[in-house]
Amino acid sequence: MSIKVLGYAAQSATSPLAPFTFERRDSREDDVTIQIEYCGVCHSDLHQARNDWGFSRYPLVPGHEIVGRVTATGAKAHKFKVGDLVGIGCLVDSCRHCSACDNGLEQYCENGHVQTYASEDLHDHRPTYGGYSQTIICSEDFVLKVPENLDTKAVAPLLCAGITTWSPLRHWNVGQGSKVAVVGLGGLGHMAIKLAHALGAEVTLFTRSTSKEQDAKQLGADHVVLSTNAEQMQAVANQFDLIIDTVPYEHDLNPYVPTLALNGTLVLVGYLGEIKPHTVPMIMGRRSVAGSVIGGIQETQELLDFCGEHNITADVEMIEMQTINDAFERMLKSDVKYRFVIDMQSFHQTNSI
Amino acid sequence: MSIKVLGYAAQSATSPLAPFTFERRDSREDDVTIQIEYCGVCHSDLHQARNDWGFSRYPLVPGHEIVGRVTATGAKAHKFKVGDLVGIGCLVDSCRHCSACDNGLEQYCENGHVQTYASEDLHDHRPTYGGYSQTIICSEDFVLKVPENLDTKAVAPLLCAGITTWSPLRHWNVGQGSKVAVVGLGGLGHMAIKLAHALGAEVTLFTRSTSKEQDAKQLGADHVVLSTNAEQMQAVANQFDLIIDTVPYEHDLNPYVPTLALNGTLVLVGYLGEIKPHTVPMIMGRRSVAGSVIGGIQETQELLDFCGEHNITADVEMIEMQTINDAFERMLKSDVKYRFVIDMQSFHQTNSI
Repeated sequence: MSIKVLGYAAQSATSPLAPFTFERRDSREDDVTIQIEYCGVCHSDLHQARNDWGFSRYPLVPGHEIVGRVTATGAKAHKFKVGDLVGIGCLVDSCRHCSACDNGLEQYCENGHVQTYASEDLHDHRPTYGGYSQTIICSEDFVLKVPENLDTKAVAPLLCAGITTWSPLRHWNVGQGSKVAVVGLGGLGHMAIKLAHALGAEVTLFTRSTSKEQDAKQLGADHVVLSTNAEQMQAVANQFDLIIDTVPYEHDLNPYVPTLALNGTLVLVGYLGEIKPHTVPMIMGRRSVAGSVIGGIQETQELLDFCGEHNITADVEMIEMQTINDAFERMLKSDVKYRFVIDMQSFHQTNSI
Repeated sequence: MSIKVLGYAAQSATSPLAPFTFERRDSREDDVTIQIEYCGVCHSDLHQARNDWGFSRYPLVPGHEIVGRVTATGAKAHKFKVGDLVGIGCLVDSCRHCSACDNGLEQYCENGHVQTYASEDLHDHRPTYGGYSQTIICSEDFVLKVPENLDTKAVAPLLCAGITTWSPLRHWNVGQGSKVAVVGLGGLGHMAIKLAHALGAEVTLFTRSTSKEQDAKQLGADHVVLSTNAEQMQAVANQFDLIIDTVPYEHDLNPYVPTLALNGTLVLVGYLGEIKPHTVPMIMGRRSVAGSVIGGIQETQELLDFCGEHNITADVEMIEMQTINDAFERMLKSDVKYRFVIDMQSFHQTNSI
């Protein structure tokens, strides 16, 4: 049985997002159906809508920071019941049998995972459509349980911005006594600060603007270092066990690498392109430059549970679905603290089909 | 008490190596005095002699792959006795109290280690002179015990080429079941193959020349992959836990990074300069690019003991001290399999002072 859903889609790389009615794929026995309440607006939604990476498929309904309530469950879906508060992140399926999937690393599925939008279902090969819509259907194995004690609307960004920074924090064993630095204070950066702080690390924000100091400290940063100030940078040489670099555009890594401690790692989570680090500080301190993408399903559940226990959510600015094109423009100017979240309630009321 | 020693030195960046008589620093209570029998010829000897890195000090006596016999011990030096077969590598001292030194990582000493040549003694501030000479004095804590069962002349390169590849193999936990690739088949590369093989790894050599296949397999490589052949490179995508890149000049890392497995690391041990990896294969496979330099004293002893147990030495071509300038020229053309070693015996006979 398939259902008709109203969403917002880009019809091409140059057209703004506009209302779009589409059929979700037929539901299967292991599926849950979710009425979407909130959907975060990720930078990659914008990149995908405009085909910045060259592999978009249209019509394209963005959105992979989804929170909603279960409205139906398949005959063999037993993990959730109607009414449960749940989330969907960037992934809705994977091969489920490769070594990566076996280890809960579906984001690195060797046979190619299925993304929440602009991807193709593994069974009926129909396109996937994201969370800028009323309803979504997903195998229960890729649905997350959302703690009821959190501010629901501010949970949505945990599903991408949160897990993208949580996964490297966990992989590189950040905890009490760790020194972590964050490059860039946007959707990802503000989550990196909150999560590293909550894990017990001493947290430093690298920024190019003194104006961010107060905000960073409120988010949990212990220190703010002006990356354009050579003296300040020299003062933090050999300090950090992990630097999470969230900057999504081309930038010079060379000021940051020498601030890593012996065996430290700078992990890029936002920039797709060429980097040009000099090897001397890498060789002379056994330092690494690495990459990391989102996180696995089990790890995402772990993050949500951790956030429930520590009362952590994103800092969000609520918008209505109809204003998404303006939000995209503001996001391009980094004019958001720190994540737009679409309130689907208004959408349901004004656009019922 | 200081001793006069005959060595070979560069007097400037442009002068060839030539005989040079100098005084070793005064010996101290924890020192051992070593009559040098063999000294390996490392690429960095050439770089330093010609001031390629801009921080050479003249007169410069190169040589940090030293094997010899103890001829005297200080009053408080109890680790060795006269006649012991011993080695000295790239380091003759370090601060001995920083966190790196406390962890046996003197190569990353936070206060700057003392190199075997072109460095400055921490106590009397006199220059250090290397192994292209008859005799050397060194604190017993930086002297290594050399197994008597090995071919002594072929042990010398273990002190730099060996430890430089051994340290990353151990740091990244290479063992039975690991897949390791080596880029470049020179002094370092041939040791990387031998050591990775002996540790139980499946070893692949990346090369740009089919002519190296037979040699690589004799050294212990299981596979040889032509890095200029896109099809062969594609066939080894997602394979390697560790790639040891020994190439000492500028080269493109982008063909190699996608051959790393999930969580794999490409470690540079030979190239000082800018690299330009693309982040997509790093991000999409949580892959790292790292650097590593030589190894600590304890780790070097561990290597020598391992080589004694597994009967591993370098493949060497013996030269006399007097032919060092020709050897430098041949090394520049990679015309050596795989390491020149100076036989100091001839030097002692013809140049006694």
